[in-house]
Amino acid sequence: MTRNIKLTIEYDGTHFYGWQIQILPKRTVQGELEKALARIFKRKIKVTGSGRTDSGVHAVGQVANFKVQTPMPVDVMKKAINAHLPADVAIVGIEEVPLKFHARYSVKSKTYHYTILNRDVRSPRLRHTCLLYPYKLNLPLMRAEARDLIGRKDFKSFQSADPAQTANGRTTIRTIKRVNIKKRGDFIDLEIEADGFLYKMVRNIAGTLLQIASGRLPKGSIQTILSKRNRVFAAKTAKAHGLTLVNVKYGKDPK
Amino acid sequence: MTRNIKLTIEYDGTHFYGWQIQILPKRTVQGELEKALARIFKRKIKVTGSGRTDSGVHAVGQVANFKVQTPMPVDVMKKAINAHLPADVAIVGIEEVPLKFHARYSVKSKTYHYTILNRDVRSPRLRHTCLLYPYKLNLPLMRAEARDLIGRKDFKSFQSADPAQTANGRTTIRTIKRVNIKKRGDFIDLEIEADGFLYKMVRNIAGTLLQIASGRLPKGSIQTILSKRNRVFAAKTAKAHGLTLVNVKYGKDPK
Repeated sequence: MTRNIKLTIEYDGTHFYGWQIQILPKRTVQGELEKALARIFKRKIKVTGSGRTDSGVHAVGQVANFKVQTPMPVDVMKKAINAHLPADVAIVGIEEVPLKFHARYSVKSKTYHYTILNRDVRSPRLRHTCLLYPYKLNLPLMRAEARDLIGRKDFKSFQSADPAQTANGRTTIRTIKRVNIKKRGDFIDLEIEADGFLYKMVRNIAGTLLQIASGRLPKGSIQTILSKRNRVFAAKTAKAHGLTLVNVKYGKDPK
Repeated sequence: MTRNIKLTIEYDGTHFYGWQIQILPKRTVQGELEKALARIFKRKIKVTGSGRTDSGVHAVGQVANFKVQTPMPVDVMKKAINAHLPADVAIVGIEEVPLKFHARYSVKSKTYHYTILNRDVRSPRLRHTCLLYPYKLNLPLMRAEARDLIGRKDFKSFQSADPAQTANGRTTIRTIKRVNIKKRGDFIDLEIEADGFLYKMVRNIAGTLLQIASGRLPKGSIQTILSKRNRVFAAKTAKAHGLTLVNVKYGKDPK
């Protein structure tokens, strides 16, 4: 009997070329997972992620699913997969789900963190997980501007600047449910939850909010940029290594 | 005129053979600092640390000092040193101090963190900064036992098991001022402040407290082990990568 297995995955994105298997033989999270499954089940198994993450982006709660015919209990499967994965990726959760569950199509919302280190000196210990931004930031202004992102809006201005990565006729409308900006010592955590994100949208929002909060773009810029529906008005994409996919929610999830 | 410069240093210990310059050409934090200073001041400058840290041990507040004849302002010096240091070490603080200040002899206390990840799966993102300990821990018991460490005591039982690293006739008496055990999600932070530590003392204490809290050693073991004054009674040394030197205090420090 075919079973559908849902995985929750943590990874350090530093040494991965992102989530998705590439045409060229690059090291990807999906690739490492499929390699582990092939070793355990002795055949090729396709893993479907909730969506791709870019090169350098981390995850503590990426979700994926795969279908398999095996009597193996899920906790045994979790140990077996982890034993076959390299040190920078691990299965932190596993459960059997109905066959209709699809890690991408069933998504209700995703939450990302963008972490900023707001001091003058880089952090050797956290150099792979935060962006160093040494300029003074106006956090109340940053929060006020972030509130203008909330709701069902056209985020075309925050899509990727790369023509190969744009929506190309598909909708650029998304619903941002929540933006939280928290100070934690010298760190600032920008947390965004939405029903989905355009390619590079979180990093473009992070880059733009930093420009506003440091006085490089005027107050009201989020409204202005959204209304332009043109990528050229948003700020430069913030670097990948500050970004972490924290959580993916599905219909029946309690939280 | 000779000036005495105090540095506060952060480093990711993963790829260092500890703080102290070795006879063999190994990569050390002290070595990288002296290389950077030699490039800036065009002569050999000796850097004195508050004490050595082992291979794999991290620091967010290691302290060192060096003497130099230069009119260079300290903030310029800080930028210059950071520009010459590799990505896994940085000067996070700098100040000019009286000539009599000595980073090792002037120490009043040091604070270390030992971080434990108490869940069944390793953390890819934090694999270099915490110890995975998957067994159930009794935190109230761990805290009660930790209190027995506080005060001026003979810590001979918690010295290094390596004969080359023992006190060898020097005193093994130290004063532990504070032990805090904090739960933070799946993490447990063990924080210890003392006027000084024997070689490997924090890691031997961490290893022993984990054995007690998981039921592998009986309640009261800290008292018993202390009274034995013999290293064989303490538990195995906990691994280096969970340990971070957080803070070094000096006489005139306000906190």
